[in-house]
Amino acid sequence: MSITTPRGFVAAGLAAGIKASGALDLALLATEDGAAVPTAATFTSNLAAAAPVQVSRAHLAASGGRAAGVLVSSGNANAATGDRGRADATAMCTLTADALGVATEQILVCSTGLIGIPLPMEPIEAGIPRLVAARAGGPEAGADAAAGILTTDSGRKEVLVEYPAFTVAGMAKGAGMLAPNMATMLAFLTTDAAVEPGPLAGLLQAAVDDTFNSMSVDGCTSTNDTVVLMASGRAGPGDPTLLVDAVTEACADLARQMAADAEGAERIFQVQVTGARSDGEAHRAARKVADSLLVKCSINGADPYWGRVASELGSAGVDFDMDRLTIAYGGTTVCRGGIQVPYDTGAVAAHMAGSLVHIECGLDLGAGTGVVMGVELGYGYIDENRTTS
Amino acid sequence: MSITTPRGFVAAGLAAGIKASGALDLALLATEDGAAVPTAATFTSNLAAAAPVQVSRAHLAASGGRAAGVLVSSGNANAATGDRGRADATAMCTLTADALGVATEQILVCSTGLIGIPLPMEPIEAGIPRLVAARAGGPEAGADAAAGILTTDSGRKEVLVEYPAFTVAGMAKGAGMLAPNMATMLAFLTTDAAVEPGPLAGLLQAAVDDTFNSMSVDGCTSTNDTVVLMASGRAGPGDPTLLVDAVTEACADLARQMAADAEGAERIFQVQVTGARSDGEAHRAARKVADSLLVKCSINGADPYWGRVASELGSAGVDFDMDRLTIAYGGTTVCRGGIQVPYDTGAVAAHMAGSLVHIECGLDLGAGTGVVMGVELGYGYIDENRTTS
Repeated sequence: MSITTPRGFVAAGLAAGIKASGALDLALLATEDGAAVPTAATFTSNLAAAAPVQVSRAHLAASGGRAAGVLVSSGNANAATGDRGRADATAMCTLTADALGVATEQILVCSTGLIGIPLPMEPIEAGIPRLVAARAGGPEAGADAAAGILTTDSGRKEVLVEYPAFTVAGMAKGAGMLAPNMATMLAFLTTDAAVEPGPLAGLLQAAVDDTFNSMSVDGCTSTNDTVVLMASGRAGPGDPTLLVDAVTEACADLARQMAADAEGAERIFQVQVTGARSDGEAHRAARKVADSLLVKCSINGADPYWGRVASELGSAGVDFDMDRLTIAYGGTTVCRGGIQVPYDTGAVAAHMAGSLVHIECGLDLGAGTGVVMGVELGYGYIDENRTTS
Repeated sequence: MSITTPRGFVAAGLAAGIKASGALDLALLATEDGAAVPTAATFTSNLAAAAPVQVSRAHLAASGGRAAGVLVSSGNANAATGDRGRADATAMCTLTADALGVATEQILVCSTGLIGIPLPMEPIEAGIPRLVAARAGGPEAGADAAAGILTTDSGRKEVLVEYPAFTVAGMAKGAGMLAPNMATMLAFLTTDAAVEPGPLAGLLQAAVDDTFNSMSVDGCTSTNDTVVLMASGRAGPGDPTLLVDAVTEACADLARQMAADAEGAERIFQVQVTGARSDGEAHRAARKVADSLLVKCSINGADPYWGRVASELGSAGVDFDMDRLTIAYGGTTVCRGGIQVPYDTGAVAAHMAGSLVHIECGLDLGAGTGVVMGVELGYGYIDENRTTS
């Protein structure tokens, strides 16, 4: 399986020399025939958005939601690089477009790595023509592309979802999980279903909200986060509902791969909130718990200190009644009516010793539900993030 | 100096047996003559507020902003304890009121310690009459009270601010700084100035906003945070402006003592934001930076990775223009116009190796300013918080 499995796409990856390690650091995803196809993207909400985000946003607006390819570089985020960064990101698109024989605004660009350092353009300028020349279908080229977008990830993250009428494939990088000095989460999806740009944008946003936007490493919003979905149309129009399902499934799988690749972290946790006034309130409450340093530390220590969970829910800015609160770990209720109840401590201890801890919170105020994934806070996070060198 | 220095107050502290260690765990602050004097308090905004917070709020409302005394217990937060917790907190007030010969609603109560465990009422019931009997003026009784409110603090936190016309004194606990499983920040202030309850509440809120509410350990809002200010009136009416200054100075001093007592942390940092659209936006932006796990890790590593500061400012939910951004460490500008500038790396390294790092952020959009204190994130925080045992 590879990003090139859906009909109509080619890919490539190579080591251009951005990374001192010599690892692959440049990747291309493009349409097989150079046509600009319906393409949707979601970008970081950060107002300090990196140059490639600014340029890709503008290109997608100018092209009316169509693109012929995406260039990705890893090792340097081209963020906080000002006018020079914007010029560099645009130059990357132009070089790629020229080599592909398409217009500059039909190319999107993504970068990931350290913030605040100008891109080394020489190796990139030399690498792009070679990259474009190397583009091909098939799993090898797809694997090279999936490797070229990584930073501190332990390995490639790829997914394939096959439906009778169409296929959705994806690749992602997200060592962002526990190495946010390489802060970015990037994901690229392809499908051979035929969809117009408008509906494509809507279904991607829905899938991203349910998956990538329901994860929490450290509450930090990267300057470079980007998800791109290209639709070649080669398989003809698919059932829109099925396509939403397939794209969501692909995003969820990539998100799980990121969570599982949390470097230095041996334990992740899922916070489920039910009984909130609305789904929005449930999601906000779940995120407050998943973002909590104290809860993350408790997960690291496998300590079922539910008082911290209650405290986070109480300060989440959502409707809350302590006397109605229920909290369970892995299905074992430890708090009911806002107070501790006798429980099977052995069962909870066994659950918390595992690699995935479930925290279930019932607010008993409505029908709103929400789930957010979190990552423990241990020495590994600090080791990874205390210095950039 | 002691909480009893302003005329009209007595205090006491003793080991009632709540803490297994045998350390002091019960404290009393009361008026010398049993009169209910103008008293103001600010409480946690957490909707999971502990029983003593609920009871104290109700008592202060019932008494019209007057109190004759405050009972404080340490070692158990009486939080997430439901109806039983409320009954226990009320019983603590009644026992104290009976021993002092005042009405129950003239007593406030505060507790600090672990969440979710019912209070051991037997030692408390036995301890209160002894505590009340031991109340006295002078520094020794004040020191006992200041010790009785502590949890993981390394020592007493006391302050005295003397003006010609009146005096303000205070005591606090805030090992909350790096040991938030004993999560609470408590502060108690006395003055002999004469002020009515209304103005007293206003000036306390202003002082708290400028001091305690401008600190960030880990972004968690405790279930028990409380600040109480009692005014005996013995010194006659003071200049209201001077009194605000004195109370603010006392709170600021106690806040600094808490920051300096951050267990396991060797470095704290101050985030100053200028040029925001408003003071509110500046404060929000400074808090986002001070709360950031990535920034906290950088401070731990003494790494001037200003890109993370920019990323937090860009996602703080305030007006922001990357191209106008300036960032400096200890007065040395490292970023101007949103991009890195050449700077004296030796000067920045020397500054960041110190125990207090200054991060100055200029948004160049208005006249709003704000300052928030933060604490590094290192192994110490995790060691302190991964388990409660």
